[in-house]
Amino acid sequence: MTSLSRASAPAKAILVGEHFVVAGCPAIAVAVDVRARAEARLLAEEGVVEVSSRELGSGTFGAQADPRSPLYPVYAAARAVLARAHLNLGLEVRVESDIPPGAGMGSSAAVAVATVAATASLLGLRLSLEEVSSLAYEAEVVVHGRPSGIDNTVSTYGGAIYYRRGEGFVRLEADLEPVRIVLADSGIPRSTGEMVSKVLALKSRHQGVVDRIYDAAARLVEAARDAIERGDYETLGELMNINHGLLSALGVSNAKLEELVYAARAAGALGAKITGAGGGGMVLALAWKEDAEEVARALAKVSGRVILAPISSEGVRGEG
Amino acid sequence: MTSLSRASAPAKAILVGEHFVVAGCPAIAVAVDVRARAEARLLAEEGVVEVSSRELGSGTFGAQADPRSPLYPVYAAARAVLARAHLNLGLEVRVESDIPPGAGMGSSAAVAVATVAATASLLGLRLSLEEVSSLAYEAEVVVHGRPSGIDNTVSTYGGAIYYRRGEGFVRLEADLEPVRIVLADSGIPRSTGEMVSKVLALKSRHQGVVDRIYDAAARLVEAARDAIERGDYETLGELMNINHGLLSALGVSNAKLEELVYAARAAGALGAKITGAGGGGMVLALAWKEDAEEVARALAKVSGRVILAPISSEGVRGEG
Repeated sequence: MTSLSRASAPAKAILVGEHFVVAGCPAIAVAVDVRARAEARLLAEEGVVEVSSRELGSGTFGAQADPRSPLYPVYAAARAVLARAHLNLGLEVRVESDIPPGAGMGSSAAVAVATVAATASLLGLRLSLEEVSSLAYEAEVVVHGRPSGIDNTVSTYGGAIYYRRGEGFVRLEADLEPVRIVLADSGIPRSTGEMVSKVLALKSRHQGVVDRIYDAAARLVEAARDAIERGDYETLGELMNINHGLLSALGVSNAKLEELVYAARAAGALGAKITGAGGGGMVLALAWKEDAEEVARALAKVSGRVILAPISSEGVRGEG
Repeated sequence: MTSLSRASAPAKAILVGEHFVVAGCPAIAVAVDVRARAEARLLAEEGVVEVSSRELGSGTFGAQADPRSPLYPVYAAARAVLARAHLNLGLEVRVESDIPPGAGMGSSAAVAVATVAATASLLGLRLSLEEVSSLAYEAEVVVHGRPSGIDNTVSTYGGAIYYRRGEGFVRLEADLEPVRIVLADSGIPRSTGEMVSKVLALKSRHQGVVDRIYDAAARLVEAARDAIERGDYETLGELMNINHGLLSALGVSNAKLEELVYAARAAGALGAKITGAGGGGMVLALAWKEDAEEVARALAKVSGRVILAPISSEGVRGEG
């Protein structure tokens, strides 16, 4: 055991396949190098976890922890590690996150992953990446019901992750260094549940047509996987553009999202699309490293928040 | 024979299926009640056709007619009727058109159809609609190579026309009175050839994906046909929106076209999409008769040219 341990974990963004993934189609997400950080210290008092968050304030959790507290997920992550280690020590956990919350970037999963890693390291508990991801997932389940597991997986392993329901996760072998991710916020709140319902309703009204759009999306994700594994980012960008059109066909785009998408493409992005549920939220552009600043500048003219970051081939990591 | 005959013929707009039609998928076009008019008079001088156009000036055609003249298509249409009647009379043909040229609205076909009808009526030649359409097509071939025949067919028959290569044209039984067409110009020139090439290149690079998008489009047009025949314009509008997304997936949309599409939808259109090749040209909205003015007003804020018109159940017709 050490007196202090730190860890960080990256954000995630869906590259291709959102919405279609709900019906069993594959999807690919990437780790975006914007991080949540956690540091854990031992406390003298047994059974108590003091949580403080740069963004959310602080609170103390003990036997009567309130699951409605915004800090509860951090406590749940630390608690999961303590339970795994069969320890009932007192802990202080501090977290901070550069990942915008509620943006579909897996902010809460990244905080959970970093908390699990920092706590395990503090306790001298050696966890495999699989165990880190799975303990973070446990903490997520407490708060979010049954998430897909993509957020904690991407945040833990980093890189590009291929996912298909029932088949689990495959980390793609890829050289992600030549490209950058540029994310731009539409300023319109996301409403994932509403969008998912809207798409399912459209699907039921136009089954034959929409089924074929799903077929196209499933093929597209397989082609995107091949493109990533070959390092063929022009092809990947084109597939992202096609994917955007399919999302538009599902009715989850709007005027602002289109403005962002075409601003990114006009500025030289390899591809640009809605990322996540649509209706609001963010647009994701893929650009060559050399062109990414230009894409970000163009997006900053029409978006209040632009994030330019590498794809993080590293997932969770200890921090000095 | 009378001393003067007049006829008019409507414009066309593609409702669903453009681009996909090139690969043998079906499409549906409608007659838009914006008309080209022709009037024909006898001239004393045999074998001479004097053509005057409100838009294009005037010219005289005889044995040495110049096929590069912009008025030549009118001459060719009149000539085709004279040949059909085995007559070599002199004619004066005046044409005028409210249909914007070069907008994908079949302006030249409508002028040809009206010219054929006015000339035939002047000569006392009773032509079936099939013959009118076919003589207008002959005149079109002289100028445009081998067009699909959709323009002259819609302009002749009016209403909504279902088309599939190799299967010919089916005029749909429909009550088109409850809805209106609102067209808005993007102000960006069309480049049909360039767009068709772009789509075919995308198709060859992403065959498996794009083939499935074509499957979706083929299904969509069949569903749109059913919706028109049932008078279910809400469903038709939704299918138009899906079709727009599929065109976006093919890469023929742009920021301006999206702005127009979402402006129309926000103003209450049942559906709104690119019409024609995309990359520029026009957006087509379908709206309830009661809502169409509102949609047109919203589009006028972002488009330099907006056309609101009924779907013309009447095609070519004699005029007083």
